[in-house]
Amino acid sequence: MALKLRGTVGSSATFRALAALYEKDLDFDFVPVNLSDKENKSPQFLADHNPFGQVPVFEHDDLKLFESRAITKYVAETFADKGTSLIYKDPKKSAIQTVWMEVEAQKFDPTTSKLGWEIVLKPIFGMTTDESVVAEFLKKLEPVLDVYEKRLTECKYLGGDSFTLADLHHLPNLHYLMGTKVKSLFDARPHVSAWASDILSRPAWVKVASMLPK
Amino acid sequence: MALKLRGTVGSSATFRALAALYEKDLDFDFVPVNLSDKENKSPQFLADHNPFGQVPVFEHDDLKLFESRAITKYVAETFADKGTSLIYKDPKKSAIQTVWMEVEAQKFDPTTSKLGWEIVLKPIFGMTTDESVVAEFLKKLEPVLDVYEKRLTECKYLGGDSFTLADLHHLPNLHYLMGTKVKSLFDARPHVSAWASDILSRPAWVKVASMLPK
Repeated sequence: MALKLRGTVGSSATFRALAALYEKDLDFDFVPVNLSDKENKSPQFLADHNPFGQVPVFEHDDLKLFESRAITKYVAETFADKGTSLIYKDPKKSAIQTVWMEVEAQKFDPTTSKLGWEIVLKPIFGMTTDESVVAEFLKKLEPVLDVYEKRLTECKYLGGDSFTLADLHHLPNLHYLMGTKVKSLFDARPHVSAWASDILSRPAWVKVASMLPK
Repeated sequence: MALKLRGTVGSSATFRALAALYEKDLDFDFVPVNLSDKENKSPQFLADHNPFGQVPVFEHDDLKLFESRAITKYVAETFADKGTSLIYKDPKKSAIQTVWMEVEAQKFDPTTSKLGWEIVLKPIFGMTTDESVVAEFLKKLEPVLDVYEKRLTECKYLGGDSFTLADLHHLPNLHYLMGTKVKSLFDARPHVSAWASDILSRPAWVKVASMLPK
C-alpha cells in the first residue's frame, strides 16, 4: 500500500487532507508542490495530477484523487478501522453528518475563504485588504455562526456526538481566522468558541499547523 | 415509509432533489414552500425544517435533511436498488465519482449560479443584468468546461461510464443556462454539448422541468 499526498504547506485544501491522514494515523509520502513556481500549472501536473491545476492530489497505489473533500472522504471510508473514526456507519447518522459537511462547503467555506483572502493572504502578497469586502463577509458569517451555536447546544460536534469530517473540514480556515479580528465573532458564541478550541487542539491538527513556518 | 419533500418549483436546489427522487422512481409528497411569502424564513420553518431558511427539506419518517446534495446522496444510498443506480458500489469508482461531485459543487455551481442570477433571475425580478459580472463569470466557466470536454472524451459521464449524481447535480443550472447566450460555450465543446443534451433529455429531468409554468 503506497499513499502519497502532493500539496503545499499553508494551502487550506492541502491542510484539510493532511488533517484527515494524521487523524487516521497513516503512513504516507508528502510531496511538496511549489505554487510560487506555478509547478501546479505545468502541462505535466495538469495531465498527470489535476486538470484544474490545484493542490492537494492524493494517490493510493494506482488511484489518483483531487478535491480535498473527496480525498478526506475516501481516506475515512477506506481506512475506517484505523485511527479516529471520522464517519458514522449508521445510515441516518451518516446522512445528518453529510448535511453538516454540505453546510461547511456551501456556507462556511465560501465566507471564511473570502475573509482569509482579504485579511490574511492579501497582506502577505503585498496587497491591501478591502475593508468593505471584509464587512460584507463578516455580515454573512454571523448568521451561519448563529446556526452553529444552536446546533452545538444540541450535540457536541456539528455532525453528531463525535468528531467527524463535518468538523475536520472547518479546521484550516478556522485556524487562520483565529489569529484575526474575526475571532471575536466566535468568542461571542460560547458553544462555537468551545467547539473551535476543542477541534483546533486535536493532536492531528496541531501536527498539521506545526508545518507552518514560525 | 413516508417520504416528503418541501420545496419550491423553480428553485435549483429543489429541482436537484426532485431529479434524484424521480430517477429512483419513489413515491413522495411534494409540499410547496412559498418563498414570496417568506414562509421559509418563518420561526416555525427555521425551527422545524431548516435553520438556514432554505429549500428543499426532505423527510423520511422521523429523519429530516436539508442541503440538496445531502438529500440526493441519502436517497441514492438508501434506495440503492430502486430505479436508476446513481452511485457506484466499488470504492475506487465511488471515489472518482465523489471527485466530480466536488467539482460540480466547488467549480461549476458557484459560476453557473452567478450567471443564472444575472441573466435569468434578475430580469424576472425587474433588476438589470450586470454585463461586467456576466463577462467575468463566463471567463471563469470556460476553463471548467475545457476540463469537462477532456474528461468526457475519456468516459461517457463525468463520474464514470454511467449516469450518476456527479451528472445529476448539474441539471438545474444546465437547464436554465441552455436558454441563454451561455449555451454557446457548451455548443463550442462537442462532448460537453452531447453530454448536456443527453442528461437534459432523461425522463426524470423532463418530468421535473415540466413543473415550470409554460
